[in-house]
Amino acid sequence: MKFAKQLSRLGTETAFAVSGAATQWAAKGHKVYPFHLGDINILTPDSIIEATAKAVRDGHTGYCPGAGIPELRDAIARDVGIKRGIEYSSENVSIQPGGKPVIGKFIMTVMDPGDEVLYPNPGYPIYESQIEYNGGVAVPYGYVETADGFALDLDALRDAITPKTTALIYNNYQNPNGAQSTREEMEAVAKLALEHDLWVLADDAYYEIQYSGQPMTIADIPGMQERTVILYTCSKRFAMTGWRLGAAVGPSSVIDVINKFNTNAESCTPHFIQRGMVAAIEGEILGPADILNTLRERRDACINGLNAIDGIDVATPNSTFYVFPNVNRIMERKGLRDVNALMEGALKRSNVSFCTRKHFGRLVEGESNHYIRFAYSGIDVPDINAGLKRLKTYFDSVD
Amino acid sequence: MKFAKQLSRLGTETAFAVSGAATQWAAKGHKVYPFHLGDINILTPDSIIEATAKAVRDGHTGYCPGAGIPELRDAIARDVGIKRGIEYSSENVSIQPGGKPVIGKFIMTVMDPGDEVLYPNPGYPIYESQIEYNGGVAVPYGYVETADGFALDLDALRDAITPKTTALIYNNYQNPNGAQSTREEMEAVAKLALEHDLWVLADDAYYEIQYSGQPMTIADIPGMQERTVILYTCSKRFAMTGWRLGAAVGPSSVIDVINKFNTNAESCTPHFIQRGMVAAIEGEILGPADILNTLRERRDACINGLNAIDGIDVATPNSTFYVFPNVNRIMERKGLRDVNALMEGALKRSNVSFCTRKHFGRLVEGESNHYIRFAYSGIDVPDINAGLKRLKTYFDSVD
Repeated sequence: MKFAKQLSRLGTETAFAVSGAATQWAAKGHKVYPFHLGDINILTPDSIIEATAKAVRDGHTGYCPGAGIPELRDAIARDVGIKRGIEYSSENVSIQPGGKPVIGKFIMTVMDPGDEVLYPNPGYPIYESQIEYNGGVAVPYGYVETADGFALDLDALRDAITPKTTALIYNNYQNPNGAQSTREEMEAVAKLALEHDLWVLADDAYYEIQYSGQPMTIADIPGMQERTVILYTCSKRFAMTGWRLGAAVGPSSVIDVINKFNTNAESCTPHFIQRGMVAAIEGEILGPADILNTLRERRDACINGLNAIDGIDVATPNSTFYVFPNVNRIMERKGLRDVNALMEGALKRSNVSFCTRKHFGRLVEGESNHYIRFAYSGIDVPDINAGLKRLKTYFDSVD
Repeated sequence: MKFAKQLSRLGTETAFAVSGAATQWAAKGHKVYPFHLGDINILTPDSIIEATAKAVRDGHTGYCPGAGIPELRDAIARDVGIKRGIEYSSENVSIQPGGKPVIGKFIMTVMDPGDEVLYPNPGYPIYESQIEYNGGVAVPYGYVETADGFALDLDALRDAITPKTTALIYNNYQNPNGAQSTREEMEAVAKLALEHDLWVLADDAYYEIQYSGQPMTIADIPGMQERTVILYTCSKRFAMTGWRLGAAVGPSSVIDVINKFNTNAESCTPHFIQRGMVAAIEGEILGPADILNTLRERRDACINGLNAIDGIDVATPNSTFYVFPNVNRIMERKGLRDVNALMEGALKRSNVSFCTRKHFGRLVEGESNHYIRFAYSGIDVPDINAGLKRLKTYFDSVD
């Protein structure tokens, strides 16, 4: 008996190891400040909970179509379309057990072994894993620091395109760095996709987590809708991370294939959860606005706490629930070379847990800046303040 | 833009087309008798519904570990182990969104492109699809009719093994034919697996749907536990098809890989459903016994109704909720050559909907018998009686 060779190309989310270390430290009696978690410690809106509880009691406990129930496909098509000013109908929507499955299913639909796929790095580590596991070549593109935060490194992106490039993964409202494109930047990305005839995965997981202004989508640029698959998720907007409900939204030719992958894998996404969600999307629920307000307060506390640290000067991100400060000066002060050593020190010395740039895709050659990532979605304001005060003491010291 | 070449190897469940035809016929005002559905029209036990509703209200709405919550992994390890007389612990269990995902994840774990995998045919069509999509060679083995139902064609199975054979898929309590192995047959299968050093996927989806006697598992035969992955599902036993909750149970080396696939795809199975299920498995709930009693009454009605038809003589299966009668004599009487024509005629002439052998894997060379499959899990006894009376009229006629 042996294992498949291809498994050597399968990646994972190494951030889970950070959770493990935090749990172990907490088990020793320490109060840990969990800035490493991209989870949300806010309750899902009551209306969704009650609609779902009703759906299960009403007996929506049998199979439903692999593509999702027509009512939810319709509701998401309308919701995504209205928010983006473009038209979708139910055949453009494939319901998924979360947003994440869209990554692998998109790649399996459009990529052949040997094809190159552009992906953001630092970025969500599953991009890299799924491209390479499925035999493709994962070609990273990065970001440059600006006064406002981060901007896509458009020159590098342009230079990375070759005749083998098949698809581009674009995570506007970016994890881990909170970057959001200007209209110009988005149009430049679209231009490249059009010029080189690329498929685009628009990872819109944080589309609704924007604190001011209107979110934008690459799919509404002329010529883009027919080549773009949107990763949609209920996780962030409705504080439903553990419910596992999302969708792929895109050209019906791609959606038909993704539906076939559903039939081959999970059969369907839980039936009563879909029924509950229809009520939630179609109703005028207050949940998302409340969730966003809570997250904004936390963001502000997080930014204040971080900028009080000598050597950190981080811009306020307008989207996502992440902050990605450059810690070059802290590393220098402490004489550290590996940013994961800073992470380990912070846990032991200040009980503060966070991820680093190393948890978001492999390092790119020549990369010299050091970053760490704070998620403020799973931690209340008083704990943000208390944790970052402790962190300041550790970061400000030379050892 | 193009689509991946590998998609040409991706199969599906063609039985969904039967559902489509039935729905269309019903939309024309006909009362359809739905024997095509492998779904269950019995409510999930209240205790599970209430435990799940409580879990969601208690706020178990965030992420949980990709492998599943420790309490459910423990509970399933104990439950599967006690029922089979072998020992498992939580590291032998990976929670899944249904039983079906285990098929693809098992194949991706143990099979390289070009490897051969033995699978039952007629059988669940996703075996064939997942083996071939992932680049393997799907090698079918079949069954022979006996006085009691169906027995595995052991000679054919033995002859099909080559040095390239990597794994064997074994679906005791079989869909679509309801076959269950004698101890001798199971030992013969195990002997082959041991002799040829094969991995085994024991698709135990219907393990608990047995009407008399104790179910048996291939995993308790010496040397087998370390090479066997059990496909476990809550779907049938607890009437939870649409909840999508199952598990892979097997050697921790395989389970670790499957957990990594979870992290790459669905992240985790819905958190509160897992919490609810812990209560269900650990409590002494009456649900499964009631469900089995209801299914037994339906089975008896189905067998009686079918055997009242001139030309059908089908044994009473002791497991699953399927009956797979040979319809050679009906086909002959009607002068039909394609069993799907019989299916279409039955829908139009008697309003009875069923699947045929053709929905359960591609035909094997030289196959000459005609079979159709009745599922009685989604239809009440009065409708079973009424439908099969109508079917008798159609089947007994020469046109």
